[in-house]
Amino acid sequence: MNGFSGKVLRVNLSENRIWTEEPTESFYRRYLGGQGFIAHYLLKELPAGVDPLGPDNLLIFATGAITGVPVAGSGRSAVGGKSPLTGGYGEADVGGFFGAELKQAGYDAVIVQGKADKPVYLWIHDGEAELRSAQHLWGKTTLETQETIQGELDDSRVRLAMIGPGGEKLVRTACVINDLKHAAGRTGLGAVMGSKNLKAVAARGKPQVPLADAEGVRELGRWMAANWKELAWGLHDTGTDGGLVDLSEFGALPTRNFQDGQFEGAEKITGATMRDTILTDRGGCYACPIRCKRVVAVDDADYKVDPNYGGPEYETCGSFGSNCGVDDLRAISKANEICNAYSLDTIATGMMVSFAMECYEAGLLTKERTGGLELNFGNGKAMVELTRMIGEREGLGDILAEGPKAAAEWVGPGAEQFVVAVKNQPFPMHECRTRHGQALGYAVSPTGADHVHNFWDGGMEKEPLAEDWQAVGVYEAVPQTELNATKVRAFTHVVNGAWLANHLGLCNFVPWTGDQIIQLVRTITGWQTNRHELLKACERGVTLARIFNLREGFSRKDDVLPPRMRMPHKSGTVNEKPVDPEVLDENLSIYYGMMGWDPETGAPTLAKLQELDIEWAADRLGRQ
Amino acid sequence: MNGFSGKVLRVNLSENRIWTEEPTESFYRRYLGGQGFIAHYLLKELPAGVDPLGPDNLLIFATGAITGVPVAGSGRSAVGGKSPLTGGYGEADVGGFFGAELKQAGYDAVIVQGKADKPVYLWIHDGEAELRSAQHLWGKTTLETQETIQGELDDSRVRLAMIGPGGEKLVRTACVINDLKHAAGRTGLGAVMGSKNLKAVAARGKPQVPLADAEGVRELGRWMAANWKELAWGLHDTGTDGGLVDLSEFGALPTRNFQDGQFEGAEKITGATMRDTILTDRGGCYACPIRCKRVVAVDDADYKVDPNYGGPEYETCGSFGSNCGVDDLRAISKANEICNAYSLDTIATGMMVSFAMECYEAGLLTKERTGGLELNFGNGKAMVELTRMIGEREGLGDILAEGPKAAAEWVGPGAEQFVVAVKNQPFPMHECRTRHGQALGYAVSPTGADHVHNFWDGGMEKEPLAEDWQAVGVYEAVPQTELNATKVRAFTHVVNGAWLANHLGLCNFVPWTGDQIIQLVRTITGWQTNRHELLKACERGVTLARIFNLREGFSRKDDVLPPRMRMPHKSGTVNEKPVDPEVLDENLSIYYGMMGWDPETGAPTLAKLQELDIEWAADRLGRQ
Repeated sequence: MNGFSGKVLRVNLSENRIWTEEPTESFYRRYLGGQGFIAHYLLKELPAGVDPLGPDNLLIFATGAITGVPVAGSGRSAVGGKSPLTGGYGEADVGGFFGAELKQAGYDAVIVQGKADKPVYLWIHDGEAELRSAQHLWGKTTLETQETIQGELDDSRVRLAMIGPGGEKLVRTACVINDLKHAAGRTGLGAVMGSKNLKAVAARGKPQVPLADAEGVRELGRWMAANWKELAWGLHDTGTDGGLVDLSEFGALPTRNFQDGQFEGAEKITGATMRDTILTDRGGCYACPIRCKRVVAVDDADYKVDPNYGGPEYETCGSFGSNCGVDDLRAISKANEICNAYSLDTIATGMMVSFAMECYEAGLLTKERTGGLELNFGNGKAMVELTRMIGEREGLGDILAEGPKAAAEWVGPGAEQFVVAVKNQPFPMHECRTRHGQALGYAVSPTGADHVHNFWDGGMEKEPLAEDWQAVGVYEAVPQTELNATKVRAFTHVVNGAWLANHLGLCNFVPWTGDQIIQLVRTITGWQTNRHELLKACERGVTLARIFNLREGFSRKDDVLPPRMRMPHKSGTVNEKPVDPEVLDENLSIYYGMMGWDPETGAPTLAKLQELDIEWAADRLGRQ
Repeated sequence: MNGFSGKVLRVNLSENRIWTEEPTESFYRRYLGGQGFIAHYLLKELPAGVDPLGPDNLLIFATGAITGVPVAGSGRSAVGGKSPLTGGYGEADVGGFFGAELKQAGYDAVIVQGKADKPVYLWIHDGEAELRSAQHLWGKTTLETQETIQGELDDSRVRLAMIGPGGEKLVRTACVINDLKHAAGRTGLGAVMGSKNLKAVAARGKPQVPLADAEGVRELGRWMAANWKELAWGLHDTGTDGGLVDLSEFGALPTRNFQDGQFEGAEKITGATMRDTILTDRGGCYACPIRCKRVVAVDDADYKVDPNYGGPEYETCGSFGSNCGVDDLRAISKANEICNAYSLDTIATGMMVSFAMECYEAGLLTKERTGGLELNFGNGKAMVELTRMIGEREGLGDILAEGPKAAAEWVGPGAEQFVVAVKNQPFPMHECRTRHGQALGYAVSPTGADHVHNFWDGGMEKEPLAEDWQAVGVYEAVPQTELNATKVRAFTHVVNGAWLANHLGLCNFVPWTGDQIIQLVRTITGWQTNRHELLKACERGVTLARIFNLREGFSRKDDVLPPRMRMPHKSGTVNEKPVDPEVLDENLSIYYGMMGWDPETGAPTLAKLQELDIEWAADRLGRQ
């Protein structure tokens, strides 16, 4: 079978048992990998109601059809499990090198169940796998962990997916860190890893992903080598943070816990400033020439930042920067380093800090309860310290480590209005009020507020519509701050595109065209696939994730936005319109219906399951 | 706008008024042409309940994006209106030259409403149009009509869509004949033309369809020129009738009014025999090198067949041959000639004759009522004579001209069991009992039993499934005589492919790959379209046609097969299984659901209308 190793590694930590499964090719074709595998296995194998931090949960590492193929954009993979943050479908997608290495080591996915008696790590190499003790690694940072494991395996090219103390301590916003600086950030899967006493998965293999048409793949690679500078230089030059200052200008930069959309210090924390100040290098993912990742170093009286941990992405500059009112790239970089060392999601962690800051400024949190920290917006030192405290579950950090809902309850009445989250997952750094497609996106994302699943980039507000829109059946412009059936249709296509990337293990930043993505899959797998088949696979994944959440008790009432999105920005409106919950609710029905789900309940219809060839999932909906 | 003239010609015959409309490009992109235009205009402009043969009906001639472009397969166009045969959505698709000429003459479609006081024909040339008297043509055959009009316009390259006496006399199975030998055969639209006193539409223009990428189109053309012999030689050599003998061997050749599936005289009427006996030439459609059409000549004591009328297709060799028990290609060719001269659908006419023959053999029709004809199966002379009588509405022919239901009522009790039709449209020459996908196809076709709309060619009964199946999300084999969700999914894709051809004005016989069809549309129109967008356009067309029928009073109970399909073949079964109505009914629900229609009623859901961007059609369903 081309494009895959054809093997899934199964690990039962409770029984200290490892075995291999070899799914059929049509299984691969139906589910594609990444998100598709995760949605399939979670729904098929997890009983309803398991404790996300108990041994019954699954932790899945899944590559996709493109992961590990020597072509730009193939560095991504996915991590999944029931989320200890949302209580529903949990999944996070991540770049770097681990995914590619895992596939090259002989496995398309690793499914971990049970819980080890004592800390272990999983060592996978050239088609073999073993569990090794990680007792000496428990409590260590990711850097220490990587150095120790690479040392004891005597191979500095071993790639790791791992947790630091944040994951060990079951911080509900802990992530899985690949290669020190790539985070499978959202939905708290680092805590799931910690709950299993699994410190790391280490992989090493020979580049041996079989290709149906190796020359065809190389040809695509040569095209990208020749064209990426023209198409994606900005991403290389200033990274994902390059557009931060423009977002602020547009009123779309989350500022001080989403109270505002413009940040007076934006210029100081935007990608160009980073490039011109603390940037020491650029990093990238497997096989990618663009190298959009940052490497920063700080070494002064205030902060010391280890360049081994890379540097902050846009999301991180937003969450710890504007969103905490902090205009100091050094502080942001320090918080980023702590998150990568402790395996904490920078988005959620920044949002927990900004939540605490707003509570503090509103008088709901006093110094007594902050452990003496002066949690005013803009206090970079306090932000960094609180980040560390979350990773250590120390004092207020222990509270914030439980996620926004629990934290707000602990803070007390009034605090709930400062929670900016959907399904208990804090917002990433993308506004809804300036683009209402994003409002729908966050509301319906199976993982809660999540830009890697349900990002809305808009761009359909002006006639004539771009060819890309027309090609997905969107023929009329809709203003950014409106929602209607046309916008919802456009949204379903945008989201399908994102889900496709997550299924394939493909980076959405690499400027492949839609045709080229299909050509990639064709040349890699040999399948004469097409846009229709691939989008159906994505619908399959989204629909399975929906069913998973319904089975866990989620319903329409959970597909809502936090109160903050109903309020205008504090310092005046620019390009914004608060989201009317009734309008959102009307469009929920449209979205459900368009997805082939019941327009009232959002439950996938039997017909949709039949269309998607997942009738097996019907009994998970309580039907036969 | 590329690929189209951008103009729709409107003709109100009652008011003797002609005008032009210029739809927006997004209209073209939504509806594509052909079937899409027809479904749109019929539903949008026709009130419910109009008399199909009254002046309020519309008669639409519609080309598609590919029609008239100098590349193989572009010779097709569609004719539409409310059907006087079924009472519902009427549409027939046709090859030849008229469609190409119409577009080159400056119009993508012609929409005729009202009724002329006296017979007229419409003359369209180089962007202009006029109505001219056809009083001198009324009662004439199509050949006489063509010769006269070409003479008076002094141009032998004028192309005509026209009716003969059958259409004039409102035979409910009359068709529209293009260029003497290409029939827009089904649903009785020749009668609609007759009811409007419209004898012909004549077109002449310069080949001037604007192309976005003329060199790209030429490149595709060169590919087909270089490859068609390898891919489609059989079609050239023995025509569509080439496989008749194989069908008989398989038990799938309609024989003696579908009583049997094997015909002892199959060898005598199959394409190879035709080639070796009466064939004098091969004909084709605009720009096509394959030339699958037959030209035959007969001149002996029994029959004289004028080669101007071409020769019989497979459908005709089936309907007048095996289906009437006739093993004489001369008789079949004569019946074919009469149908083309009178503008009668050869399929329906043959089926009306076979119905009468079965009634005769069963003793329900006596010589008294047949006008002395001995209507035994196999009597070629009687068959030819009855065909003429239908065209003239003479004696028993006048009864049969009213279609199967009325004829069966006239014959009396017991005759209804000999009707092999859906929605009053007789079966084309494709069995259901040997491939149950076809059973569903006939049951749900908006035009009644129809292979140009809802043909099932099967081929998914063996593992491993062909790449083509997998590429549409069909990953498991299903035996030909079974129906289940996988088969239904496969069916929806096959039908979408056929509808796509009918939308584009593309011939499904020309061996373009799916990718090449997309490339054709891209190079012609400049739209960066893809399989997804094109299939959505087809869904749009199918869904609008469904709504049209629901509004006319059709419901689930009309999506059924005639009793004959529940019976085994008379002379022993080969590869067949009678269709269980309960199984079919279960699969109706699955099909409805997969189409986004209510699984109970088959009414398109609001969500589906929103997804397809045809919310305007909601009020045609009695909703807002």
